Amino acid sequence: MPTDADWMRSAAALAARGRPLSRPNPAVGAVLVRENRVVGRGFTRAGGRPHAEAEALAMAGDATRGATLYVTLEPCAHVSPRGPACADLVVAARPARVVVGCTDPDPRTAGQGIARLRDAGIAVDLIDCPAARASLAGYLRRTREGRPEVTLKLATSLDGRIALPSGESRWITGDAARAHAHAERARADAILVGGGTLRIDAPRLDVRLPGLAERSPLRWVLTRGTAPDGWSAVSDITAPGAFDDAQYLFVEGGAQAAAHFLAVDMVDRLLLYRAPILIGDGLAAIGDIGLDRLDAAHGRWQLVSHRALGNDTLEIYERSR
Amino acid sequence: MPTDADWMRSAAALAARGRPLSRPNPAVGAVLVRENRVVGRGFTRAGGRPHAEAEALAMAGDATRGATLYVTLEPCAHVSPRGPACADLVVAARPARVVVGCTDPDPRTAGQGIARLRDAGIAVDLIDCPAARASLAGYLRRTREGRPEVTLKLATSLDGRIALPSGESRWITGDAARAHAHAERARADAILVGGGTLRIDAPRLDVRLPGLAERSPLRWVLTRGTAPDGWSAVSDITAPGAFDDAQYLFVEGGAQAAAHFLAVDMVDRLLLYRAPILIGDGLAAIGDIGLDRLDAAHGRWQLVSHRALGNDTLEIYERSR
Repeated sequence: MPTDADWMRSAAALAARGRPLSRPNPAVGAVLVRENRVVGRGFTRAGGRPHAEAEALAMAGDATRGATLYVTLEPCAHVSPRGPACADLVVAARPARVVVGCTDPDPRTAGQGIARLRDAGIAVDLIDCPAARASLAGYLRRTREGRPEVTLKLATSLDGRIALPSGESRWITGDAARAHAHAERARADAILVGGGTLRIDAPRLDVRLPGLAERSPLRWVLTRGTAPDGWSAVSDITAPGAFDDAQYLFVEGGAQAAAHFLAVDMVDRLLLYRAPILIGDGLAAIGDIGLDRLDAAHGRWQLVSHRALGNDTLEIYERSR
Repeated sequence: MPTDADWMRSAAALAARGRPLSRPNPAVGAVLVRENRVVGRGFTRAGGRPHAEAEALAMAGDATRGATLYVTLEPCAHVSPRGPACADLVVAARPARVVVGCTDPDPRTAGQGIARLRDAGIAVDLIDCPAARASLAGYLRRTREGRPEVTLKLATSLDGRIALPSGESRWITGDAARAHAHAERARADAILVGGGTLRIDAPRLDVRLPGLAERSPLRWVLTRGTAPDGWSAVSDITAPGAFDDAQYLFVEGGAQAAAHFLAVDMVDRLLLYRAPILIGDGLAAIGDIGLDRLDAAHGRWQLVSHRALGNDTLEIYERSR
């Protein structure tokens, strides 16, 4: 029999389908369960509406009465011009119990969603679900710290090179690794390259995968100058309001842009694609990050995933905080 | 019931125990099997004597008659001042059958060992056993190409650095990775460092593992100058006779020494120890290897093993030839 944690993981998996188009809303997932059967489910749709709970309740209809609602984020408590508060919708639909994966740090909700449910006599359990938190990483980072969750992508040789001395960099990794990077890009609200990379490589940085073209993220260039058409310029990545309301920023390089983010400890996740080649002299993946002692480099990164992609390997590291 | 291939793998595993002290002889393994039970076994002892077959036959005594002898390398056909030819010993002991993992490229044997057994009415099967060949890699390379099997060790950050710009390099990898590298060093006849590394790091390059101190290999420095006490100098690594009779050479760095071996395509095996740290600006693992097109870098290396060592990872790559 599935446990609360199992159902919550299902809700988190569903939430991933809302990313990144739910912006500026969090990508939430909801599952309604009655007698161990799913009677409703939903995730935040493009542009933020409908909310996951609203979709799940609408699907279940009368079957909601007495059911358990699993939702990755606390239901919102504030009415907006775009729709009613989810907490009110849930109260009206009368599930017996609500299980919440994560409280909402938005000051307009921040516990008031849960309080409203309990005041109405609905049992509420808050469980600490890592999958739910992970599925909300960008929203939580944006709401709590005012910045997006940052993924740095590196595609290197075994000796950490991203190009020959001549600048030749096509290709180091193979088709499977590049397709994977495109899929990761499609999960981001925004991408960033350094000014040098934009000038030299003129990357399109859209999502070249069938069916995902509309997912092409907002494009930022790290520069003190101006941005070309279709791009936005950013010079101080730590400035309040940088990257607007983006929840997930995908940093594509080059070495100086990567170093900028690492130097201010703003990389949360590292995607390291590596080809089984050695280059020797060439362009390094990462410029000066201001490291003056080896001690300070240790203890920051944890390997969370490892897989083969064709002849290449992908490792994913997360910043330990 | 074990197959011929299974018994041959046992013999190859036994052979590994003779490495590297068997030099100048190959590290051979032998298993004598009668009615699916091992009645004798042996591996080449320090300095090359006794040979594996002689040891196995002596252990089995009369039980050899009618048994099957599994031996990783063709029994030698030449009498030396140090002992009789193994082929003659085997003929005298009368096993029913001999299974050989690999023919001996030494011109004094080169098929004559097998011929002598067959002439005496003993059945001989030559099976192609990758484990047997792998256990003889250094001997085969030395005999066929006049050079040792070369392993290059790199210990780097995720971005391919071996030191900070200041030269600080202690430590990038942790205790488990360094102990593993010591064990690998103990399997080599000879180690090599570049002149710069020797001057700056003054590495002892002995085997700092309990019980393995006597395994400390011969020490070479890559330099046009002279070598300090206890070291030998080599300037042209491709010269006939370089590294004397070493079968297994372990190249410890630095970046220029690594590049030297890679530039002449003399690295057969790459041990890549990586710590989960990022360094940014710093010393690269590998200097100029003369690569002028990315195409030329591909298709050379195959990942054969991957494991965690504490927080670090070890990948082993082999040169595809």
